[in-house]
Amino acid sequence: MTFDNSLDARTLALDSAHVFHSWSAQGALSPLVIAGGLGSRVWDHAGTTYLDFSSQLVNVNIGHQHPAVVAAITEQAGLLSTIGPATANLTRGEAARRIVEHAPDGFEKVFFTNGGADANENAIRLARLHTGRDKIVSTYRSYHGNTGAAIVSTGDWRRIPNEYARGHVHVFGPYFYRSEFWATTPEQESERALHHLERVIQAEGPGSIAGVLLETIPGTAGVLVPPPGYLAGVRAICDTYGIVLILDEVMAGFGRTGRWFAFDGYDVTPDLITFAKGVNSGYVPVGGVIISDAIAKQFDDQVFPGGLTYSGHPLAAASIVGALDAMAAEGVVDNAARIGRDLLAPALTELAEKHAVIGDVRGEGVFWALELVADAETREPLPAAQMAALKKTMLQAGLLPFVQDNRIHVVPPCVVTDDEVAEAIDIYDRALSSLD
Amino acid sequence: MTFDNSLDARTLALDSAHVFHSWSAQGALSPLVIAGGLGSRVWDHAGTTYLDFSSQLVNVNIGHQHPAVVAAITEQAGLLSTIGPATANLTRGEAARRIVEHAPDGFEKVFFTNGGADANENAIRLARLHTGRDKIVSTYRSYHGNTGAAIVSTGDWRRIPNEYARGHVHVFGPYFYRSEFWATTPEQESERALHHLERVIQAEGPGSIAGVLLETIPGTAGVLVPPPGYLAGVRAICDTYGIVLILDEVMAGFGRTGRWFAFDGYDVTPDLITFAKGVNSGYVPVGGVIISDAIAKQFDDQVFPGGLTYSGHPLAAASIVGALDAMAAEGVVDNAARIGRDLLAPALTELAEKHAVIGDVRGEGVFWALELVADAETREPLPAAQMAALKKTMLQAGLLPFVQDNRIHVVPPCVVTDDEVAEAIDIYDRALSSLD
Repeated sequence: MTFDNSLDARTLALDSAHVFHSWSAQGALSPLVIAGGLGSRVWDHAGTTYLDFSSQLVNVNIGHQHPAVVAAITEQAGLLSTIGPATANLTRGEAARRIVEHAPDGFEKVFFTNGGADANENAIRLARLHTGRDKIVSTYRSYHGNTGAAIVSTGDWRRIPNEYARGHVHVFGPYFYRSEFWATTPEQESERALHHLERVIQAEGPGSIAGVLLETIPGTAGVLVPPPGYLAGVRAICDTYGIVLILDEVMAGFGRTGRWFAFDGYDVTPDLITFAKGVNSGYVPVGGVIISDAIAKQFDDQVFPGGLTYSGHPLAAASIVGALDAMAAEGVVDNAARIGRDLLAPALTELAEKHAVIGDVRGEGVFWALELVADAETREPLPAAQMAALKKTMLQAGLLPFVQDNRIHVVPPCVVTDDEVAEAIDIYDRALSSLD
Repeated sequence: MTFDNSLDARTLALDSAHVFHSWSAQGALSPLVIAGGLGSRVWDHAGTTYLDFSSQLVNVNIGHQHPAVVAAITEQAGLLSTIGPATANLTRGEAARRIVEHAPDGFEKVFFTNGGADANENAIRLARLHTGRDKIVSTYRSYHGNTGAAIVSTGDWRRIPNEYARGHVHVFGPYFYRSEFWATTPEQESERALHHLERVIQAEGPGSIAGVLLETIPGTAGVLVPPPGYLAGVRAICDTYGIVLILDEVMAGFGRTGRWFAFDGYDVTPDLITFAKGVNSGYVPVGGVIISDAIAKQFDDQVFPGGLTYSGHPLAAASIVGALDAMAAEGVVDNAARIGRDLLAPALTELAEKHAVIGDVRGEGVFWALELVADAETREPLPAAQMAALKKTMLQAGLLPFVQDNRIHVVPPCVVTDDEVAEAIDIYDRALSSLD
């Protein structure tokens, strides 16, 4: 890499003039320039380097610029960069095969999308068509993507079977630290969250409910690791009422928890699995739905009324093949498990013992949250101004953190090293000390 | 390229086992294997070559495997394949700058998405937030993408400002060959379609209508070139009632019509422009909204409640820079204009004179439709079985056609050569003769 200071200024000028940013007031932005990266580090054009404990939007599981993924993209770009979804393409087939190899038995087909939002769109579509029912139950503390109207503005026949942005019912999921159920133990939180879910289903009418859509571990909402028995209980409720269980593994899947799928750690098998992010670490935009055989076979004869121009894009497929092969060969998922168990769990617990501002520590693998509170007793969230100051301190110390509401999400790439964890823990420690 | 027959069989086996396809019954598929391509041609592993007069899903405007776009992707892949949208990135800024350079004065900002569907999603969001109104008017003969529920299943605050899949109102647009308005001239079709649009707006309540969303030239619906005065009339109606005009240039934009934007050929400037496909010929999944200054400036202070992980993806941005620079340097858009004016217009007209089955010919640039009818008088569409037979004949003759309903869309890459046009016209001619 060669460094050139003037390019940072040019980048910021172009960004300010022409780039409209997500979830922001455009006048208040001061984005970091990022020009390159490797493993767990990124840098700007001047050579200022950051340790990336955000994995960007919790997607760069294999780390930045993994040579095997870059090589796979480069090779496919030279062969065939794009091809329509109606064709058959070898790289696409190889990507789909690798994905289902990591899925439970009874999952053989993959519908590819451009990202996590349209993965969930298509899972909802499948659940509704499979059950002939309408409603989708999900939780208030969740994020499933930001699309919601394009098919309804469409005029042609493809609109009619897809006017689905109706009948969405929200429940509270388990969150022991801030229980909605007056629970005093995690087990009680689980039981009561299941009771609440079942009562809402009964009150809405079980025969009207097509699917329950849950992030296996709600991510942006706070890395809300489900308490014992919760997911198995949801599966049982879905079975009782003939409801499709969709597990959203967009953020939690493909290594983040130290397992290929987060649900592998629980006694549960969903009917549909949605994915994006970790499957190729976002090197090319892609997502998809892994479809259980019971649902897939219905569409052998019945037209599936969904699609998109870039479904099964060959460059995305190549990046999936490259990423999954390298993750398997290099033990990347095992590394995430080891880092979580042997390093992050003890180190974050120790931080919590040292800093009263840390109200709760939860997570597994490289998927953790520190919940910061102004008062340990009342659990009042740390105010936004202090969170912003904390973020600034960490950035100045060379750490790119993931700060969300009153939480620090500790979400490095799955390839993070022991030394990098030690470096980050030290920066968290010093930043938290600066609050005192 | 090296050819290997056995890979075609492997591709089909993997496809059948693991790939779930768009808009299809999965049991009825017999997809073409495509392994490579160059310019207007694609081929399978055995070396069987097709002349691609579909541009896949009307997206490969610059042709297959343009070396400048492949090189741009390869170079960026080696520097930085992925980075989060909250950062500033030089390639992203360069892509945005090039896009706005082709837009009218008063458009300076680009919001990047993964494709055309979420481009329209975000344009709808902007129109609603800008006007404080709810409804979106679009036409029955249109396609704007297939997303419609992910944000509504989302639980967190990001759902609340985005429950938009409501209040969609559909009108009939102009379509002189099958007029909904008993028009006897194109001018009358235009006037009456405008009258109809305005009456629906008045009846729905102008104060409730945020936006009118139109494909500048409805594409999949049949390359419905707007009659004289229609788009200028829509602009005037929008101005009268304070309605945002969104022109969907996903298929029509970036060269397809022989102009950078299709609306450049009409006396109209929209408030929001959505794009995808042609901007980078689909080499990497991407789309976006070009935002007029009047709307963009509102979000200097106000948070824009939309976003996605891969917004402004650097690999996509590099492919845009590579594609737009090559298109400008090589006169690709001018070539599309010349091909349309000098070759396709006369040749397709001649075909229509020769074959009574062609009821209507319409288009411009490399964006044409032949509408096939069983009866020239009643204009009854040619039955599906005959369309399927026609498609098979063309494929066997080495042409990859775009067949939609009772139409052949003549939509080659913008780089198509005179010889390739002659070759395709000959195949269309012979295939149509085989119907007689």
